[in-house]
Amino acid sequence: MALTESHAGTDLGLLKTGAKLQLDGSYKITGTKIFISSGDHDFGGNIIHLVLARLPDAPDGVKGLSLFLVPKFLSNEQGEPNTPNDLSVGALEQKMGIHAQPTCVINYNGAKSWLIGAPNCGLSAMFTMMNTERLFVGIQGLGIGEAAYQGARQYACERLQGRSLDGSRAPIPIIEHPDVRKMLLTARALTEAGRALSAWTALQMDRAARDQDKCRRATAEGFVALLTPVVKAALSDFGFESAVVAQQVLGGHGYIKDWGMEQLVRDARITQIYEGTNGVQAMDLVGRKLAYEDGNLVYKFIGLMRDDVESLSHVAGIAEIAQEAASAIDRLVVVTNAVRANFNRPGWTGASATDYLRLFALVSYGWLWVKMSAKAAERRNDLSVFAEGKLQVARFFIARILPQTLALEAAILAGPDSILVFDNATI
Amino acid sequence: MALTESHAGTDLGLLKTGAKLQLDGSYKITGTKIFISSGDHDFGGNIIHLVLARLPDAPDGVKGLSLFLVPKFLSNEQGEPNTPNDLSVGALEQKMGIHAQPTCVINYNGAKSWLIGAPNCGLSAMFTMMNTERLFVGIQGLGIGEAAYQGARQYACERLQGRSLDGSRAPIPIIEHPDVRKMLLTARALTEAGRALSAWTALQMDRAARDQDKCRRATAEGFVALLTPVVKAALSDFGFESAVVAQQVLGGHGYIKDWGMEQLVRDARITQIYEGTNGVQAMDLVGRKLAYEDGNLVYKFIGLMRDDVESLSHVAGIAEIAQEAASAIDRLVVVTNAVRANFNRPGWTGASATDYLRLFALVSYGWLWVKMSAKAAERRNDLSVFAEGKLQVARFFIARILPQTLALEAAILAGPDSILVFDNATI
Repeated sequence: MALTESHAGTDLGLLKTGAKLQLDGSYKITGTKIFISSGDHDFGGNIIHLVLARLPDAPDGVKGLSLFLVPKFLSNEQGEPNTPNDLSVGALEQKMGIHAQPTCVINYNGAKSWLIGAPNCGLSAMFTMMNTERLFVGIQGLGIGEAAYQGARQYACERLQGRSLDGSRAPIPIIEHPDVRKMLLTARALTEAGRALSAWTALQMDRAARDQDKCRRATAEGFVALLTPVVKAALSDFGFESAVVAQQVLGGHGYIKDWGMEQLVRDARITQIYEGTNGVQAMDLVGRKLAYEDGNLVYKFIGLMRDDVESLSHVAGIAEIAQEAASAIDRLVVVTNAVRANFNRPGWTGASATDYLRLFALVSYGWLWVKMSAKAAERRNDLSVFAEGKLQVARFFIARILPQTLALEAAILAGPDSILVFDNATI
Repeated sequence: MALTESHAGTDLGLLKTGAKLQLDGSYKITGTKIFISSGDHDFGGNIIHLVLARLPDAPDGVKGLSLFLVPKFLSNEQGEPNTPNDLSVGALEQKMGIHAQPTCVINYNGAKSWLIGAPNCGLSAMFTMMNTERLFVGIQGLGIGEAAYQGARQYACERLQGRSLDGSRAPIPIIEHPDVRKMLLTARALTEAGRALSAWTALQMDRAARDQDKCRRATAEGFVALLTPVVKAALSDFGFESAVVAQQVLGGHGYIKDWGMEQLVRDARITQIYEGTNGVQAMDLVGRKLAYEDGNLVYKFIGLMRDDVESLSHVAGIAEIAQEAASAIDRLVVVTNAVRANFNRPGWTGASATDYLRLFALVSYGWLWVKMSAKAAERRNDLSVFAEGKLQVARFFIARILPQTLALEAAILAGPDSILVFDNATI
C-alpha cells in the first residue's frame, strides 16, 4: 500500500504523485512515496504496489485520488514477469523496531500501471483494504502484548528475589510479590479482553457478510464500523502498555536484548502509529462513528452491552462484577451524551477523542469480562482451574483497571477550553 | 558502582562476590558483576570501581556486605597507575538504548582492593551514593521528557496537515489540532511540575545541610528521604510517558531514527529500571517512608501542601486551580490513612505501592502548579506571555491530568485481594 508522501501522511488530500493516461489504456505514475512496508524484498517473484495518485484533471483533496496497480516487474509476451518497471527503492528506513520488515522510500519514475476502480474513487477503494488492515494492526498489538505477558510470566516464576509476605521463605519467585503480580495481571486482563473484543468484532463481520436477515446484516455492519477504530487503537495501546509492564517485570534484564522483551516494546510501538495513528482512530470514532445513524449506532451498541450485563448479573458469583461494569456503562452514556451534545462546538471532538476511545474500550472490556465471567461460572465444575482463573482476572480488572474510567470521564467532561486557549506560540 | 550479579539485582542480600584480607591490609575481590554502567572505557587514565562484596566471616544477607574500592590500574612505586589489576570485561551488554554508555559484565579475578568504611556496613556506605543517584536518575528522565517535548513542539509547528477548526484554512500546522495540543501540553505540564518538584527537593537538601536550626535541618532531611523515591520514579515514569506522547506527535516520523524521538523513548526507558526499579522506589515510599516518624513525616508534608494551597487560594485568578488541588490532597489523605491502617495486612503495601507513588506525585504536582500559578499571577503585568502560559498550563493540568487521582484512589482502596487470590500457577 503506497499512500504516504514525505509531506503528507494523515492528510492524504495533499498527495502529489501523478498518473498520466497512455495510449494503450495504462497509466504512468510519477512521484515519491515513503514508509512503504515491504515495499521491496526478495521473498517473491513479483511485487504489486497499490498506489494512490492524482490524474491530471483531478479535483484537489482526497476526492481527486485514484488507485493504481503498479507491478515491480512487467510481463513479457510470454506472460513472464521479467521486465523491471520504472520504479526504484530510494532508501530503507532505519526504524525503532519491526526490523524484519523492509520499510522503503519508493521512487516511481513513470512506472507503468493500471487504474483500479473508477477515477477519483481511489480513497474508498483503498479503504476496503485499510479497514481490514486496521483490525489486523490491533491484533498485531494484541499478539505482542500476549507474547510479552508470557515471557514475563515465565521469568517471574523462575527469578528468585526477596522474601515471602509472611516472612517465612526467601528467596522466592518474584511472581509472589504483589507489585509483580499486578503488572502481570494488568497485561493478562487487557490482553484477554482485547482478544474477546476482536473475536466479537470478527463475529459481526461474519454476520454482516452471511446473516440471512438484511436488518441483522446492517446492524452487524454498523458494529464493525463502530468498533474498527476501537480495535485498532485500544488493542495496540494496551499491547504497548502490556509490553512495557512485562519488560518492567524483568528489571534490568528487560532492558538488554538477550531476553527479547525490549524488542517487543519497540515492535509494539509501531502499531499505535501506522495504518492511521491512534489519534486518527479516535477522531474516526468520535468525529464520524458517533454521528452514524444520528447516534443510534453507538447507543444501540451501548444498549446491547447494558442488556447483556443486566441479564448476566443474576449468574451466581458475578453480581459484583456486573454491578461495576454497569456503572462504567452509565459513565460511557453520560460522556457520549456530552460529546454528542457538543459536536458543533469547535474543539470538543478533537479534545475528547483519545480519552473517549480509551473510555469506550475499557467499558467494553468490562462488558466482555462480565460475559466471560458468566461463561466461566457456568463451567466451574468441569473446567475448574481455567474457569476460576477467568473469574479472578475479571475481579482484578474490575477492581484495579476499570476505575480508570472515573478519570477519563472527568477529563473529558472538563471540556476543551484548557487546550484551545493557547496561542500556537505559547504551547 | 558494582552491585548487581546475574542472580541478584533488587535482592542484594543474595550477592556472592567475595573479598579476602591480604597481609598488606588490602583485599582480593573475586566474583562477577553485571550491568556495570561505564564499567570500562577509554575516557580517563584510571577507573575506580566501588564493589559490594562479602568477607569470609560475614553474616548472610545485606548485613554481610562490605564496600571495596577496586582500581582498574594499580600504582607503581612512582605512584603512576600503570599496572593492570586482576579484573576484566566479560561482555558489553546489548541494550535497548543509552548506547553511548558501555554497560559491562566485569569479572574480578582476585582484584586488589581496599575496604571503604567498616566491615559489613557496605550497603549504607553505598546508599550515600545511591540516594543521590536516584535523584539524578529522576532528573535524567525529566530531561529526556523535556527534550522530547521540545522536539515534538517544533515539529508540530512546522508540519502542515489537515484543516482548521473553523474550516477556513488548510493545511495548518498540526499544533492547532486539539489532540496534538493535548499531547504536547501533557508533556509540558508533567515536565514543568517535575522540574518544580526536583527544585523543591534540592532546596530541602540545602536546608538539611546548611540551615542553622537543628529542627529545620531534621525536617528538611525527612522531606528529602520522603521525596527521593518520588523524584526517582515519578520523574522517570512521566519522562518516559512524555517521550512516548512526543513521539506520537510525529506519527511515522517519530518511529524512524532520523528525527531522534525514538531514541529518547528508548533512552528514557532505562530511568524507570536502574538504580532500583520504580516498583522498588514505590515500596520504599509506602513500605518505609510512610512509616517514618510513625507517619508524622508524610502527614507533615501533606499538611505543608495543604497550608500552601489554602493560603494561595486567595490569589486572584487561581481559586479554581487551588480548589481542585485541595480536593486531590484530601484524596491523598484518605488513601494514606487506608494504606497505613493496613500496614499489618499482608500484601496491602505491595499491592498499593506503584499506584500510591503515582497518586502522591500527581497530588504534589497539583500543589506545585498552585505555587507556580500564584507566582505567575503576581507577575502577570511584567511577564505577561510567560506568566499567562504558566496559568494556562496549570489549568490544563488540573482539568485533564489531575483527574487520574480519582482512578488511583479507587484502585488502591479496592485493596489487594484481587491480586493475592491467585496461585502462582494461575496468574
